[in-house]
Amino acid sequence: MDLASEAAAVSERYRNQVMTRVNGSCLRLAVFDDVFRWHHHPTSDELFLVVEGTLVIDLDDGTELRLGPWQAVTIPAGTIHRTRAIGRTVNLCFEELAADTVFVDSAGR
Amino acid sequence: MDLASEAAAVSERYRNQVMTRVNGSCLRLAVFDDVFRWHHHPTSDELFLVVEGTLVIDLDDGTELRLGPWQAVTIPAGTIHRTRAIGRTVNLCFEELAADTVFVDSAGR
Repeated sequence: MDLASEAAAVSERYRNQVMTRVNGSCLRLAVFDDVFRWHHHPTSDELFLVVEGTLVIDLDDGTELRLGPWQAVTIPAGTIHRTRAIGRTVNLCFEELAADTVFVDSAGR
Repeated sequence: MDLASEAAAVSERYRNQVMTRVNGSCLRLAVFDDVFRWHHHPTSDELFLVVEGTLVIDLDDGTELRLGPWQAVTIPAGTIHRTRAIGRTVNLCFEELAADTVFVDSAGR
């Protein structure tokens, strides 16, 4: 699969799709230009890798992780976070296929 | 982590290192300019994603999968394959941390 052309072909403001399965995990391609709700995944780490644009991952201690193309970070299971796109952003996400998501009302601060 | 600058900093002809753990899996960064031995991983799928250069993945039915930057493929567990770099090639590989590797003498043809 060609991830760059898959990303370029997305015309919606938001898409998040499984591109391939790897053992009990999956690789997702996400395209968006917005900010998400605070949440955590109780049992799954989550690896983010940016393809295009700038992705900020906010943590509930106030940390801002700002990632550009080919920059990556793993958010450990249970860590409250939200993703925030600076303009149109394409990222890959690697996580367990059956990962639960628990939304929280705020950053807990 | 910045995968592009990590890759640029590698001066050896061969390096393969774990960059981050994600649940029971890991993301590896591999830099090489050579051909590998035929092998398979009995219990782990393996996702390849090319960062720089051209990576050929040969399968034992004669198929050549030729990947450039942002191109990716998952090789299912048990599939005999070998990786072959066309010049210096950098790729990411996502697989189980404890994946076994079984080498085979040829492609079985």
